[in-house]
Amino acid sequence: MTLTKNGRHIFNEVPHGYPIPGRTTIYDGSQSIDLDNVPLNGGFLIRTLDLAVDPYLRSMMDQVSNSHVTPFQLGEPLINYGIGLVLRSEYSEAQPGDHVYGLIPFQEYSVLKDFENQIERMRVLRNDVGLPWSVYVGAAGMPGQTSYMAWKAYAKAKPGDVAFITSGAGEFPDGFEAAWSHLQSCRNRRIGMRNRLVIQLAKRDGMKVISCASSEEKLQYLSSLGADVTYNYRTTSAREVLEKEGPIDIYWDNVGGETLEAALDNASTGARFLESGMMSGYNEQHLPIRNLFKLIGMQVTMQGFLVWSLVDQYRDEFYREFVPLLASGDIKYREDITHGLETVGEVLLDVQRGKNFGKGIIHLADG
Amino acid sequence: MTLTKNGRHIFNEVPHGYPIPGRTTIYDGSQSIDLDNVPLNGGFLIRTLDLAVDPYLRSMMDQVSNSHVTPFQLGEPLINYGIGLVLRSEYSEAQPGDHVYGLIPFQEYSVLKDFENQIERMRVLRNDVGLPWSVYVGAAGMPGQTSYMAWKAYAKAKPGDVAFITSGAGEFPDGFEAAWSHLQSCRNRRIGMRNRLVIQLAKRDGMKVISCASSEEKLQYLSSLGADVTYNYRTTSAREVLEKEGPIDIYWDNVGGETLEAALDNASTGARFLESGMMSGYNEQHLPIRNLFKLIGMQVTMQGFLVWSLVDQYRDEFYREFVPLLASGDIKYREDITHGLETVGEVLLDVQRGKNFGKGIIHLADG
Repeated sequence: MTLTKNGRHIFNEVPHGYPIPGRTTIYDGSQSIDLDNVPLNGGFLIRTLDLAVDPYLRSMMDQVSNSHVTPFQLGEPLINYGIGLVLRSEYSEAQPGDHVYGLIPFQEYSVLKDFENQIERMRVLRNDVGLPWSVYVGAAGMPGQTSYMAWKAYAKAKPGDVAFITSGAGEFPDGFEAAWSHLQSCRNRRIGMRNRLVIQLAKRDGMKVISCASSEEKLQYLSSLGADVTYNYRTTSAREVLEKEGPIDIYWDNVGGETLEAALDNASTGARFLESGMMSGYNEQHLPIRNLFKLIGMQVTMQGFLVWSLVDQYRDEFYREFVPLLASGDIKYREDITHGLETVGEVLLDVQRGKNFGKGIIHLADG
Repeated sequence: MTLTKNGRHIFNEVPHGYPIPGRTTIYDGSQSIDLDNVPLNGGFLIRTLDLAVDPYLRSMMDQVSNSHVTPFQLGEPLINYGIGLVLRSEYSEAQPGDHVYGLIPFQEYSVLKDFENQIERMRVLRNDVGLPWSVYVGAAGMPGQTSYMAWKAYAKAKPGDVAFITSGAGEFPDGFEAAWSHLQSCRNRRIGMRNRLVIQLAKRDGMKVISCASSEEKLQYLSSLGADVTYNYRTTSAREVLEKEGPIDIYWDNVGGETLEAALDNASTGARFLESGMMSGYNEQHLPIRNLFKLIGMQVTMQGFLVWSLVDQYRDEFYREFVPLLASGDIKYREDITHGLETVGEVLLDVQRGKNFGKGIIHLADG
């Protein structure tokens, strides 16, 4: 029997506000595993290659359960989307050497015993296009699926249309750092990638794109992705921009609140509003929408969506049409990769604070 | 040359609040017309048979123009949807003996010279099913088209679904009789017929229907149309009813405001909200919507619509599928018919005050 160290990063204490590295979560190197003999019980053994660090993980630290979030368990590893290399298997659909994508514990090796119940979110990746495996937790994973699938399902894109694509931020008074700020911040960062992909999809469909960000560096990046009009939402109002550059045919909304009101007042007839998020409604202050009736006169379609409901219909198309564009460089993405499970606490905090520019990824091993 | 009296009902004075019969509008019997020799100039001469008196005519008395309303001209006849019998014609698409439906001045005889420009709203009726002609300004006219076409286009009806169909009223404090009350009242009455037709469409599609009204008599009528659950919105809150009888799959919204909020809080996954009107937004008090973000988690489609955009696609189907159901009695409607252009002022006021139960119609002549 040969034992191999099985490092893991566990949830240690419910945080108040930002997570504290080494306290909210801690690295634990005390565990080991017998890779050759650990019982599989019909499941399969993986080596973890990459793990995503998403801002929404913060909300799973609050011990509040709802239909979309299951809280982390104290003393247990964090869990999130990741890539695993199958080492051994008693499960027919996962063979040794396969790469799987789905919810994976933050530890070096795991026996996944519940593949069937996870089938919607666990998938064997083929990667014929030769992307780095890490991309499959980002632009080729859930964020990319959200952007691509919602765009395909609801945008009804036409060349020449005007698309307004908001970042997930804005509208929050400076210095607003109360209990919910971490959540707002996190939603910001998480959807940065989604919006950037949507900008590129809109440009590929021949649209004029209006977008926004909070710094000159980010505005330049949006322009490099093809955005025709960009503005800093900290210094310029959406209303001002839309009155000049609109009316808009598509609004990819992550904000709600006053930006949504400005979009309604500048919607073209038959406009499509893709409601990906309303950050201004995630805190207790729910900004009410005062001009929703505008959607009648302008015959707007306002579509709320979650990616889960689109995956079955668009999964094959996503891997066939979209993922190759990432591999060829036709659609751009960014990753912020750190190495090793010891770094998770710092990355969690960076992601909350919006310090990362690209997708936050922990790289554990090549494979 | 033989002259025939051409009575008309003209707009005489801009009203404040309710229109005053004999002052806001007046009957004028001083005009005459030479039916045999009046020049047609490429148009056609009609005898007016029936005219609709809709509550929204009040808003055309305010001298405010916008994309959906052209104000009445002082000293000129009112104008609204009606049925005309063609007496003479220089226009190839309207032959003597034809019945036409469209915007017609409130006078006994009119030369319509601008058929081409009105082509979308002027139509030669066939009436193979033998309905009274008056029905073509109500259940077989614009109100029926609005109900049928929006339902077909957006409801995605499935047997067993739960539909919540509001009347156009509610939410207004008792005694709220300020400048805009006439408008609210009128919108109420106008959409009474639409809602009643939608209730019947929903029942034909096998749905459970929740609806509301403001009196016991009206609730009983809704039940007779098939509504499974009815409540008096003056004494019972929508929230209370929906929490018990929901969640809802379809919301036919004429109200907005708190009723819309209650509907969002009780929407099923993938619910369709057909936004026909938001009465609470027509006055200056625009009730804001505080929980719009709920449409994301429940993946609600909120569809604003105007019938004009649906007519081209659904016109033939409407006359083929829906109108025969009116003739056979499978779908019920009510009319309040008065006789003669002298009665217009009183009917206008009744309609504003909601005294009529069915569609307000002025009958001028058989034909």
